[in-house]
Amino acid sequence: MPEIYVHAVEGRTLDQKRALVRDITAAVVKNFNVTPDTVMVQIIESAKENKAKGGVLFSER
Amino acid sequence: MPEIYVHAVEGRTLDQKRALVRDITAAVVKNFNVTPDTVMVQIIESAKENKAKGGVLFSER
Amino acid sequence: MPEIYVHAVEGRTLDQKRALVRDITAAVVKNFNVTPDTVMVQIIESAKENKAKGGVLFSER
Amino acid sequence: MPEIYVHAVEGRTLDQKRALVRDITAAVVKNFNVTPDTVMVQIIESAKENKAKGGVLFSER
Amino acid sequence: MPEIYVHAVEGRTLDQKRALVRDITAAVVKNFNVTPDTVMVQIIESAKENKAKGGVLFSER
Amino acid sequence: MPEIYVHAVEGRTLDQKRALVRDITAAVVKNFNVTPDTVMVQIIESAKENKAKGGVLFSER
Repeated sequence: MPEIYVHAVEGRTLDQKRALVRDITAAVVKNFNVTPDTVMVQIIESAKENKAKGGVLFSER
Repeated sequence: MPEIYVHAVEGRTLDQKRALVRDITAAVVKNFNVTPDTVMVQIIESAKENKAKGGVLFSER
Repeated sequence: MPEIYVHAVEGRTLDQKRALVRDITAAVVKNFNVTPDTVMVQIIESAKENKAKGGVLFSER
Repeated sequence: MPEIYVHAVEGRTLDQKRALVRDITAAVVKNFNVTPDTVMVQIIESAKENKAKGGVLFSER
Repeated sequence: MPEIYVHAVEGRTLDQKRALVRDITAAVVKNFNVTPDTVMVQIIESAKENKAKGGVLFSER
Repeated sequence: MPEIYVHAVEGRTLDQKRALVRDITAAVVKNFNVTPDTVMVQIIESAKENKAKGGVLFSER
């Protein structure tokens, strides 16, 4: 607590994910006055054919 | 903004997904007075063994 | 099943919500071959001070 | 209605999932006075490299 | 971890909520082999005018 | 895109929220190579009687 969910199209590397969860956790700890071990971050990846903007799938943009 | 998440059991075709995100985007644009490019739609698919109704998994119904 | 979640900033009227859930339900029924009574739509409204784009809260844009 | 989402790291067996959705459904039926067939439970599994606690991915703990 | 989200129409009492989160937590502990203190349960309540089934808002059913 | 959801118990100030969404947006821009205006952050607040850890509501801890 808190729990943070990041919805993103698939394709990021392990290095990118490692850095993102570290930085988001730091942002929550700093601003919401919680200890790091209470912060959960989950990346929910989506295939490009499962996500759309403007009514058009990312697999077809 | 707005963001729309559709939770569904896996198994739909690309044609079905393409048409669904197009029609949902049109519904949001028409009723919530936003431009299409602000509308995000994501389909969150679930394996049949990860979803249940009435306490019974879809893989066993 | 399916379940659809619409995340939006607060401020829409009952008429807008009624029409939106009707049209989204119709889009799901048409494209995913389900009956209307299986379709759940929930609007998750957010206060303007709880949502941001580009790092700026909607209450300050 | 209600809809219940369980976010968990991947790795549970089919037996564990079957029992979990059965028991959660029973808990909702008992406490919220609904019939079982209105209760939807979905398990949203996450790869260990997509979930973190304390800023550290589960794949690296 | 795990995190459980219960989406329900508003109107349940504190007693109902207390019992529900206790029973769901017990179900997760028993079936997923985790300790109780790692289990987070959140009830996301919805106004009746923000939730629909079959294309009709609960406030109008 | 990406969209980030922060689930937290209510009680943070506007200053805390403003700073959090700014810092999370910066973390996503830096690590996932996107422009700031594509990043959406939403804080989903929960009443203390709607969230539990270890089977006990936050309103009773």
